[in-house]
Formats: sequence, C-alpha cells, structure tokens
Amino acid sequence: MPPSSAKTTDGKTTDGKTTDGKTPDGQMPDGMPVIRTIAMPSDTNPSGDIFGGWLMSQMDLAAGNIAARRARGRAATIAVEGITFLSPVYVGDEVSLFGTLLHVGRTSMRIEVEAWRRARESDESQKVTEAIFTFVAIDAQRKARPVPPEY
Amino acid sequence: MPPSSAKTTDGKTTDGKTTDGKTPDGQMPDGMPVIRTIAMPSDTNPSGDIFGGWLMSQMDLAAGNIAARRARGRAATIAVEGITFLSPVYVGDEVSLFGTLLHVGRTSMRIEVEAWRRARESDESQKVTEAIFTFVAIDAQRKARPVPPEY
Amino acid sequence: MPPSSAKTTDGKTTDGKTTDGKTPDGQMPDGMPVIRTIAMPSDTNPSGDIFGGWLMSQMDLAAGNIAARRARGRAATIAVEGITFLSPVYVGDEVSLFGTLLHVGRTSMRIEVEAWRRARESDESQKVTEAIFTFVAIDAQRKARPVPPEY
Amino acid sequence: MPPSSAKTTDGKTTDGKTTDGKTPDGQMPDGMPVIRTIAMPSDTNPSGDIFGGWLMSQMDLAAGNIAARRARGRAATIAVEGITFLSPVYVGDEVSLFGTLLHVGRTSMRIEVEAWRRARESDESQKVTEAIFTFVAIDAQRKARPVPPEY
Amino acid sequence: MPPSSAKTTDGKTTDGKTTDGKTPDGQMPDGMPVIRTIAMPSDTNPSGDIFGGWLMSQMDLAAGNIAARRARGRAATIAVEGITFLSPVYVGDEVSLFGTLLHVGRTSMRIEVEAWRRARESDESQKVTEAIFTFVAIDAQRKARPVPPEY
Amino acid sequence: MPPSSAKTTDGKTTDGKTTDGKTPDGQMPDGMPVIRTIAMPSDTNPSGDIFGGWLMSQMDLAAGNIAARRARGRAATIAVEGITFLSPVYVGDEVSLFGTLLHVGRTSMRIEVEAWRRARESDESQKVTEAIFTFVAIDAQRKARPVPPEY
Repeated sequence: MPPSSAKTTDGKTTDGKTTDGKTPDGQMPDGMPVIRTIAMPSDTNPSGDIFGGWLMSQMDLAAGNIAARRARGRAATIAVEGITFLSPVYVGDEVSLFGTLLHVGRTSMRIEVEAWRRARESDESQKVTEAIFTFVAIDAQRKARPVPPEY
Repeated sequence: MPPSSAKTTDGKTTDGKTTDGKTPDGQMPDGMPVIRTIAMPSDTNPSGDIFGGWLMSQMDLAAGNIAARRARGRAATIAVEGITFLSPVYVGDEVSLFGTLLHVGRTSMRIEVEAWRRARESDESQKVTEAIFTFVAIDAQRKARPVPPEY
Repeated sequence: MPPSSAKTTDGKTTDGKTTDGKTPDGQMPDGMPVIRTIAMPSDTNPSGDIFGGWLMSQMDLAAGNIAARRARGRAATIAVEGITFLSPVYVGDEVSLFGTLLHVGRTSMRIEVEAWRRARESDESQKVTEAIFTFVAIDAQRKARPVPPEY
Repeated sequence: MPPSSAKTTDGKTTDGKTTDGKTPDGQMPDGMPVIRTIAMPSDTNPSGDIFGGWLMSQMDLAAGNIAARRARGRAATIAVEGITFLSPVYVGDEVSLFGTLLHVGRTSMRIEVEAWRRARESDESQKVTEAIFTFVAIDAQRKARPVPPEY
Repeated sequence: MPPSSAKTTDGKTTDGKTTDGKTPDGQMPDGMPVIRTIAMPSDTNPSGDIFGGWLMSQMDLAAGNIAARRARGRAATIAVEGITFLSPVYVGDEVSLFGTLLHVGRTSMRIEVEAWRRARESDESQKVTEAIFTFVAIDAQRKARPVPPEY
Repeated sequence: MPPSSAKTTDGKTTDGKTTDGKTPDGQMPDGMPVIRTIAMPSDTNPSGDIFGGWLMSQMDLAAGNIAARRARGRAATIAVEGITFLSPVYVGDEVSLFGTLLHVGRTSMRIEVEAWRRARESDESQKVTEAIFTFVAIDAQRKARPVPPEY
C-alpha cells in the first residue's frame, strides 16, 4: 500500500469512467458492502502494516461472492485488471468492499470491486483501491459452463 | 483461477517481452524462487480450490521481498498491473514465485512476478500467472524515500 | 449450531422487544452490516461445520467495532447475555452481522448483535442468532474511562 | 474482556450454585482441563489484547469436546447462557478450560465451562469467565438424535 | 506421522528411563497436561492428515511453557533430541501434551514432552510421540541469562 | 531458537558428515530451496520471536514435499533425528529450506533438511538448523507401501 503522503488523485478509472460521481471523496458508496471486515494483527506484513496481498485476497473473495451468486454455483477468477492503492490500511480499520456486476458474457462475468477503509474510532472513510475482476462459471470438473439466465 | 480447460496462450507480456524464450512451456525459470511454498487445505475457498486471492497474496509477498532487499528497508505496494490466471492451483501443489526487478526509479521499483505450480507427486510444472508490481520505498512515517544506490 | 430441523421460533428477545417487526422471517435488517464475511473452510470444526465459536468471535468483533467507534477508543467485552443458535452456518455462506447500540452508560455500552446467513448461491437469508454484548471503555492501562459525549 | 480494575465478585452462578466452594480465589479447579492452550500473538484484537471472541471460541470447543464424547458423535451448540468476563487474558497466558456435564436430556446436554488464566512466568491463576452451553446430539443430516445411554 | 499399522514399541527412552512404568499402554500420564488442544481441519497437510510439523509445534509450545515458568521469563529452544512418531493424529482428536523438567543447568533446561491422542468420541488414548527439548533462558537482548533459583 | 550470543559450532553432523564443505559459513547451499517463505508476524510466539515450532513445521513440510515426490504419493513422518538451533529467526526473515534425499529403503526415505535465514534487507545468510527426517510411503488406508522404483 502507498506511502501516507500519497495524493488521492481520484480521477478516471482504467475503463474511462469517473468514480468521483458516485463515490465523492471521503464518502463510501451508498450500496451494501459485499464484505466488511476488521483488519487484524494477524493480517500484517513484517513491517506491521496490513499488506496489499491481504487486501487483494479480500477483493477476490468479494468478487467471487458476486460471481457465485449470479452464476448460481462455482466460479473461478481468470483475470484482474490493474490495481492502484490510494491509501494504506491500518490494523483495526474497518475495511468495506463494494462490488458491481459490470457485464455478464456466456460463461464469464466482469465485476468491479472498490475497497474503502474507516479508522476504528473515526467516522471518516477513504477509498483504498479498486479493481475489475473477471470470473468464469465452472462445473464440478472445473470446465467453463454457461452463466444461467437471471430470474 | 481459470477453468481447467483454459488454454495457456503464453504470448507477449504487458511490457512487450516474450516470456516463452526464458520460460518454455512446462519448464520453470532457471533462477531461484523468491518464495516457494505448499498450498495447504487452510488456503482453500468455499469450493475447496486454492483461491486466486491467496495466490495474489503470495505474489505480493514475493515482490515485497525483492523491494525490501533493494530498498534496504520498508516498501509498500502502490500498483499491480493486470493479472491473468492460466492454470488452477490445487491443495498440495508446490507453488514457486520468481521475481525480476525490472526498473528502479527515484523512490519506486517495478517488479515482475511469475507463479508456477508443480503437482506434489509430479515432475512437471505449469505457469499459473504473472503480474507486474510497483512498490515505493517508505520511511518509518510511511513517507516515500529515495531508493539507495546499489552497492 | 442447531440441528437443521430446529424451528425458528423467532419471538421475543431477552429484553422483551419483538424482533419480528424489524426483521421479518427470511429478510435481513434494512441497515448496513457491521461485519459481512464469508465462512471459509479454515473456520470449520472437526465435523466440517462452521462452529459456534467462530460465530461468537465474529459477533464480538462486530460489537467491539460499534463500541470502539462510540467510545472513540479502546473498549473491552465484559458480558454477553444468552445466545440461542437458530440455524446452522455452512462453508461458503455469506454471514452478516448487524448491531444496534441499545444504551450508553457512564463507562459502558450495551450492543445488540444479530447474525444472518445467506447461502452463497441463493438470494434467501436466515437469522442465525442474536445476543446482547456489554462493553466498557478502557484507557491504555485497561482502566475503565468515561464514554465521551456524542458529537 | 474487562478493565483490569474489575472486581472479581465471584458469587453465585446462574444456576444458583456457589462456585467459590470448588474453585477458591486464585486456585484452579482440581480436575483435568478439557482444553489448555497458550494465547498467541495471532489471537489478539486490534488493541493488542486477546479478544473475548477468541475465548468464547475456545469455550465452545471445550464444551463441544465434552458433548461429542458423551454423545459418541457429532453435536452442535444450540445455546449459551450469559457470560461475564472477570479478568483480561494477555498474550502468553496459559488458558485452561474446565468443563462439567450438568445434565443430559433425551437429545441435549448442558455443560458448564470455566476459563482460567495463568501468566506465563507466574504460579498464580485467575478465573476469567464461565458459561453454560447447551449442545444437541446430531446425525449426519444434522437432525437431532438421542444421546446414547452411558456405559 | 506413522502408518496406522505401525507397532508401538514403547521401550526405553533416550535417557534410559522406561516410560512403560508411568504410562502403561493406552493410559495417559497421571499429571496435568501442559497443553491440551483439539486438532482442527486447518491443521491438516495436503493429504488431509494432521501433519507432524503441527505436532512438533505444539510440543515446542508446551516445553516453552515449562521453560518460561521455571526461568521466570523468556526462554528459547536450542535443541530437540530425536522424535519418533508412534501413532497418527486425526482431525478432531484431543491432543494432550505432558511435560517433565528433567534438569536445570546454569542457563539451560532439559524438558521431556509426551504427546497423547484421544479420538473425539472415545475414552481410549494412544501415545503419539515424545521428545526431549533443551531451552536456554534469555534476556531482552536474547543473551543467555542464569535460570533463577527455585522458590 | 538459541540466544543471539550462541556460537555457531558448525562441525560434524549426527551422521558424521562435515557440513562445512558444502555450506561454508554465511553462504547458502547452491541448490534450489524446497521451501522458501517469509516469517510473518502471525508466526511469532508470546515473546514476539519466531518460535522453534514454526520452523520445525516448515522443515516437516519440506521433507514431506521431497518424500511425496519420490514416493509418487502420500507419505508420513515417522522420525526426526536431533535438531540443534544455531541462530534465531526474526519476523520478516526469508527462510529457505534445502533438502537432500539421503537414502531410500523399501518403504521409507531418509531426508536431510537444512534451514537458512536471510534478514529482509540484507544479502547475508545464516544457517539456522538442520535435521534428518524419516518418512514412510503410505497408501489410502495409511498402510506402509513400497516406494516405487525411480524412473
């Protein structure tokens, strides 16, 4: 995660969309979090920071949750588009992951995940990062299968 | 991670370099792994697969190991370029992470990480994924600091 | 957690309030979850079930999150009122914890926590349990300290 | 867990029995612990304390151990009566859990669990908490089943 | 851990003492366990067995508990004499570790640790292994320090 | 692990072979590590040190990796010969485990494992310990089975 002096230049995302519109600085998205958890001492790296890998892990779980629900079954990560870390996460922070299903293909799903932090004793939030995950619906033999129609 | 039927189209990497040259199909890089670990039952997702997030976590640790060594101190992940998962990882697999320091800037470092798997009872390896991480050297207050000259 | 044949007799809570009003059967509370997480294979007990202790752990974290925010600092669990488990939790379930700050005393806070589950591939939810936690605000020496006024 | 200034008012338990008789202040129960473990750094909460949820987890495991032995098979927590935390637990403490099978019904068992701590370098012990757990014997389909006769 | 057909040739220990006397086959030592824990699904190796390394970990914790108590402070493992595994450990087993302080030198302590298992639903126990650990008392700078006189 | 003042008397190993020849002081073995991992904060003991048990755990995993590969299947630890800890391991250290298959019997394998550490920000390495593990090839019922011929 970035140095604490890093500016949050919260401009255009990789797919050209402005995130400021729906998530103004210091204000989390309105919707429900897919995952919300507390960063624990056992999630730290050797420097005592919450490490980027833990956060990527949570983002993958969040995207996987959306994928499994939409695919009515097992799904596997096949790609993650570029991730930029805008703010560090500290032990004790409440970390909220929001997700949006961007697109459903025949067997695949594109899911945007945003991660936000709130210091344990504070009311203010910062966006930590966002990324776009692609999942594919798979069957018991790990073969790609069609995503069922929505109902 | 991808369906098991996924083709390994092991072409050009994001920085334009052909990976086939140094890592022919089914043969790990010659160099030493930065991390080599065994995928354990406690690293599985709800479907019983080793989940992508665990692997991203290991990749971040590997890149961080290279960054801390070069920066002679603390460093933090600030970006990860696109990741594509070419092959699933199973419980018991030996997972090897190889890293290359691509570029050192004033305070930042670009590090390429490749992940390979070998089934516990086999001699053959498959490339699982690769990604490029950017780290920045930080001081005790998490402020960016110059990467010291090599010696 | 209870046998799967257990009836959900979702009547009066220990403090005399009817929960049915705000949380009709099969419908989670409207508010935001304090914690929302995925029950993982590493959270199972020797029978392969998600064990009650893991859930109590998450409930304590959720109540502690509310307590730390209201107390603007460290707080410690001093009591938990009776817990009844209404539904089992399975690996892969999304587990949502909702909390309400019921009462703030001079140094203590009473917090109600409800836990709900949703099967990974389903849209329906079941209430798993609820409990009332009492926390006390503490200082660096673990001495009780007044809860600051709200602002 | 409670502030360190908390008085240990070690009086009557919820079922009306005096615990002082068998467990005088600062002296653990005579019997064998069901679980005895060391509180580790990875069991801490964001304040660096061993958190109440970890202890509840261990208590549930201890009660479950007694339940599985008596039921000669799988059993599930269905209720926990009120828990009061009398003393904090610190990293490195030896934590001992004692259990008593209070009552066996047709399919259920009531089990009292006491938790005691001993500082790693000390000979003295403090009672941390106690609670009464109700478990029900379950079969492979998680249906309640009779507790078999003792032999 | 050994194949399940392994004979328990429970003869002389490395220091010449017969263990059969105090621990007849199928009967645990009379004393109190230093550690007693439940082998959990997250403690398994890729084959689904509780792996030897986990057990060695628990034995080291048990010996360290005795060493820290006797040394009234920090102590570090410096040697482990040969370990033979007599019986496998399964998920759900209650694992009990018994320890004896064999000898106290100026800065070091020799501690014998025995590990026993009991299947969760059974009353019978098997000895799993034993080993002799040497610890040395250390100060805050990790320098060896005298073990204080007993009092 | 040993006090930091411990001399590295790196002489003859238990089987009479001089280790100095192939692993001169401060220089790791030439070969590839079987496991290479980073010692994390969650691997510490109550004193904040990486504890000996964690290291034994990694050594067992490393030996098991070699055993499973050679035996083309499941294998179980049956014995570990004496271990001496020459150097402590700190949080953040890169820990490398090297292994050599010393001997293959009908159903068993003897494997030497060496553990080395490198401080995260340094280029120098120290040998931490070495030990000889015996594994036996087992089948699905945990019965000993012949190690297959090499091919």
